[in-house]
Amino acid sequence: MRPDDLIMISVDDHLVEPPDMFENHIPAKYKDRAPKIVRQDDGSDVWIFEGAVIPNIGLNAVAGRPKEEYGIEPTAFDEMRPGCWDIRERVKDMDGGGVLGSMCFPSFPGFAARLFANCADKDLALAVLRAYNDWHVDEWCGSAPGRFIPMGVPVIWDAELAAQEVRRLAEKGVHSLTFSENPAVVDYPSFHSAYWDPLWKALTDTDTVLSIHLGSSGKLAFTAADAPIDVMITLQPMNICQAAADLLWSRVLKEHPSIKIALSEGGTGWIPYFLDRLDRTYEMHHLWTGQNFGDKLPSEVFREHFLTCFIDDPVGIKLRHDIGIDNIAWECDYPHSDSSWPSAPEELATVAADVPDDELDKITHLNAMRWYSYDPFAHIPKEQATVAALRAKAAGHDVEIRPFDKGRFARNQSGVDLATIARQATA
Amino acid sequence: MRPDDLIMISVDDHLVEPPDMFENHIPAKYKDRAPKIVRQDDGSDVWIFEGAVIPNIGLNAVAGRPKEEYGIEPTAFDEMRPGCWDIRERVKDMDGGGVLGSMCFPSFPGFAARLFANCADKDLALAVLRAYNDWHVDEWCGSAPGRFIPMGVPVIWDAELAAQEVRRLAEKGVHSLTFSENPAVVDYPSFHSAYWDPLWKALTDTDTVLSIHLGSSGKLAFTAADAPIDVMITLQPMNICQAAADLLWSRVLKEHPSIKIALSEGGTGWIPYFLDRLDRTYEMHHLWTGQNFGDKLPSEVFREHFLTCFIDDPVGIKLRHDIGIDNIAWECDYPHSDSSWPSAPEELATVAADVPDDELDKITHLNAMRWYSYDPFAHIPKEQATVAALRAKAAGHDVEIRPFDKGRFARNQSGVDLATIARQATA
Repeated sequence: MRPDDLIMISVDDHLVEPPDMFENHIPAKYKDRAPKIVRQDDGSDVWIFEGAVIPNIGLNAVAGRPKEEYGIEPTAFDEMRPGCWDIRERVKDMDGGGVLGSMCFPSFPGFAARLFANCADKDLALAVLRAYNDWHVDEWCGSAPGRFIPMGVPVIWDAELAAQEVRRLAEKGVHSLTFSENPAVVDYPSFHSAYWDPLWKALTDTDTVLSIHLGSSGKLAFTAADAPIDVMITLQPMNICQAAADLLWSRVLKEHPSIKIALSEGGTGWIPYFLDRLDRTYEMHHLWTGQNFGDKLPSEVFREHFLTCFIDDPVGIKLRHDIGIDNIAWECDYPHSDSSWPSAPEELATVAADVPDDELDKITHLNAMRWYSYDPFAHIPKEQATVAALRAKAAGHDVEIRPFDKGRFARNQSGVDLATIARQATA
Repeated sequence: MRPDDLIMISVDDHLVEPPDMFENHIPAKYKDRAPKIVRQDDGSDVWIFEGAVIPNIGLNAVAGRPKEEYGIEPTAFDEMRPGCWDIRERVKDMDGGGVLGSMCFPSFPGFAARLFANCADKDLALAVLRAYNDWHVDEWCGSAPGRFIPMGVPVIWDAELAAQEVRRLAEKGVHSLTFSENPAVVDYPSFHSAYWDPLWKALTDTDTVLSIHLGSSGKLAFTAADAPIDVMITLQPMNICQAAADLLWSRVLKEHPSIKIALSEGGTGWIPYFLDRLDRTYEMHHLWTGQNFGDKLPSEVFREHFLTCFIDDPVGIKLRHDIGIDNIAWECDYPHSDSSWPSAPEELATVAADVPDDELDKITHLNAMRWYSYDPFAHIPKEQATVAALRAKAAGHDVEIRPFDKGRFARNQSGVDLATIARQATA
C-alpha cells in the first residue's frame, strides 16, 4: 500500500498537560490545592502538588527536533513543540504526520497516576484525578471529535473507587484505562490478588481496555547506576513481557474471561518467542504447577486478551501471523524520541511493503478501532481520513521540523544525570 | 537430517556436586572447613559451608521423572537420577540421550559461585574455589575425555584473583568461565567499571568465553510474592536480555574487542527483535547519548561477540539467519525440568526439519566447538559421535525413564513455597 493511502490510528502517544488544565474541572474548594505549574529560577517549568515537585514535565518531548538535540528534556513549555501540550497544535501535527487517531498517555502524574495516589488527602486526590480525566475527555479529546481515543487514569489506591471511576468514564464514552504494569512493585496488591476484582468487573462490564504502558510499574529496566542510558532505552519494551506473563498466568483472565489488555509501547517482535515459551512452559510444567486452561493453549488465551503494538518493527511485521494478525496495532509515540513522526507513513509502508492491504488495514486502524470501541468514521468520512487527505489539510498549517534555540536548549545537555531524571520521571 | 545422524553438543547442562568432591583437592589445612553434605532429619541432603546451609542441592534435578513429578526438588541424592551427580552414570545418560558433549554449570555454589564469595575468610574461599575447579576439570571432565567442555567458576570477589584463576585454568585446557549476568546486583562493580579489566584481559589472552547463565545475577524475573511459579519459568530466558544489553553498550566490547560471551539458557527467538531494537536505539539516539561503534551497527557487534543457545525454539530456528547462523548453539539443560532429554534429537530434528545439513551442523556442534576451543573428535572418531552410535553404546547401559518412589518424593510436594526455594537456590 502507498503511504498516501494508509489510515493510521496510533494506540500510544503522549500529551504534556497544559498549565490551565484544572481550571474548568477542579471543584472550587480545591482550586488552590490543584497541581500548578511554577517556573523555576533555572528556566524550567515544574508541576507542584501538595509539596511534591515534578521536575520533568515533558519526559522527553523532543518531537520536531533534529536527533542531535534529543534528550530527557525539554523541561519547559517553551522548549517543546506546541503540539505537545496545545490541542489545536497537536491536531495540526497529527494532520502533518498523516495520523487520523491517537490515544494519549499522561505525563506528569505518571502512567498509572501515582502522583495522585501519593497524596495523603484522598478526597483531594480523587477530586484532582477526576478533574484530570474530565479535562482529558472533555477538552483534549473533545476539541477534535473523532481524532482521539479517550483514556482515563486510574484510582490506583482503591479498587472500589477505581471501578466507580471506570463506570463514570464509560458514561462519557471512555473505553481505555491506563494502569500499572505491576501494582505489587509499588506495594499495592498484585495481579494475583482478588483485591482488584471490582476493577476487573467494571472493565469487563463497560468493555474498557486495561492499557498497560511500559515503565508504568515505576521500575524501569535498570541494570546499574553507571550503565549508559542506551541500555535502558533498548530494554524498555522488552521489560513489559513481565506484565504479559504476570497477567497471562494470573487468575484475572480465568475469572474475568472478557477482559481486554493492551501492551502499550511494548513492541511486537518478541511476541512469537514469548508465545512459544508460554506453550512450552505449560506443556512441561502444568502437571506440577496446577495451571489449567482447559482445551486451550496459553498462546490462544493470549490472543483472546492482548493487543500488542509497534512503532517500527520489521521482525514483528515478518512474524505477524505468529503473533496474530488481529492482535497488532500501530503506534506513533509522539512526541517522544522513539517516534517516527512525521514520516511514520513512509516508514511503515517500507517495512510492510509485502503485507497485503487487508492485513495492513488491521494493523494501521481496524484492530485499534475494534479493541477500543472507537469509530473515527462517525465523525470523519473515510476518504478524508487517509494520510494524503490529512496532509492536504495540513498544508494550510505550519507543520515543520525545526531545531529549537540551541543556546537555551543546551542548558540541559551538560552534566545532567539522564538516568536519574528518567527514573524520577516515571517513578 | 535424521535424528540418528545428528552430532549433539550441549552448551548448557548442570551437575549436582557429589559429597566427596573436595576430598582429593582441598589443601589439608582446610579439610575440615570445606563444604560438607549433611543429611537432615527430614531426609533432605544439604551442603553446609562456614555456617551457611544450602538447602536445595539439585535446584530441580528431575531428569527421568514423569512430568507429574517435576518440582523444585529433589533435595536428596536418593531422590535424583544418579546421572545428576555420578560422572559414570552421567556419561551413560548422555549416551542414551545421544549427547556427545556437554558443558556443566554448578549447582550449590550458585552460577557465579557467590557462596564462596560470601565466605569471610578469603584464603579459605579461594582454596575451596580452586578445589572446586580442579575437581570439575580433573575428575568430572577428566573421567571422560572428549565428552565435556570444562568450565571454571569465578573468583567474583576480586578481579585480579579472578584473572589469575582464569590463567591457571587455561593451563589445564579450560576455555569457559561462568559469571554473573550483572555483578552490580550483588554490589560488585558493574560491567561499566574498569574494575574488571584484569579479568577481561585474562579472558581474551586465553580465549576463554564469559558464559553467562540466566539467573546468575541472583535476581530472578520475579513479579510478585503471590505470582504463580509459571510466571518465573516463562520469564527466565527473557531476563537475560538485560545482560546482553548491558554488555553490548558497555565499554567491555569496545576496550576488549576479542572478548567472547555466551548467553547460557537464554533462548534465541527473541534475538532478532533485540537486534532490531539495538540498531533502532543506535539510529535514533546515538547522536545525543554518545555511543560510537564506528562503521558497524550494534547488531553486527553483537554477532562478533555473543553466542546464543536454545533447548527447543521453533521461532529461533525459523529466524536463524536474522540471529546469525554462526551464533546459535544447542543445549540440553540436563537434568532440569526444561530439558528434553532423552528425546532431544527427535525433538530437534522435527523442529529443524527444513534446516539444511550444513546449518544444522553449526547449530548442533560446530559453533560450540569453535566458540569453546573444544575438539571432541580428538578423542572420539566422528562416526562414533552420532546420536545413533552413542545410543548403540548405551544399549549396554541401563538408561531408562522411571518414576521415583512416589511416597518419598511426595514429601516435598505439599505446602512447599516453591518460589521461595527457587529464589534461595539461585541467590
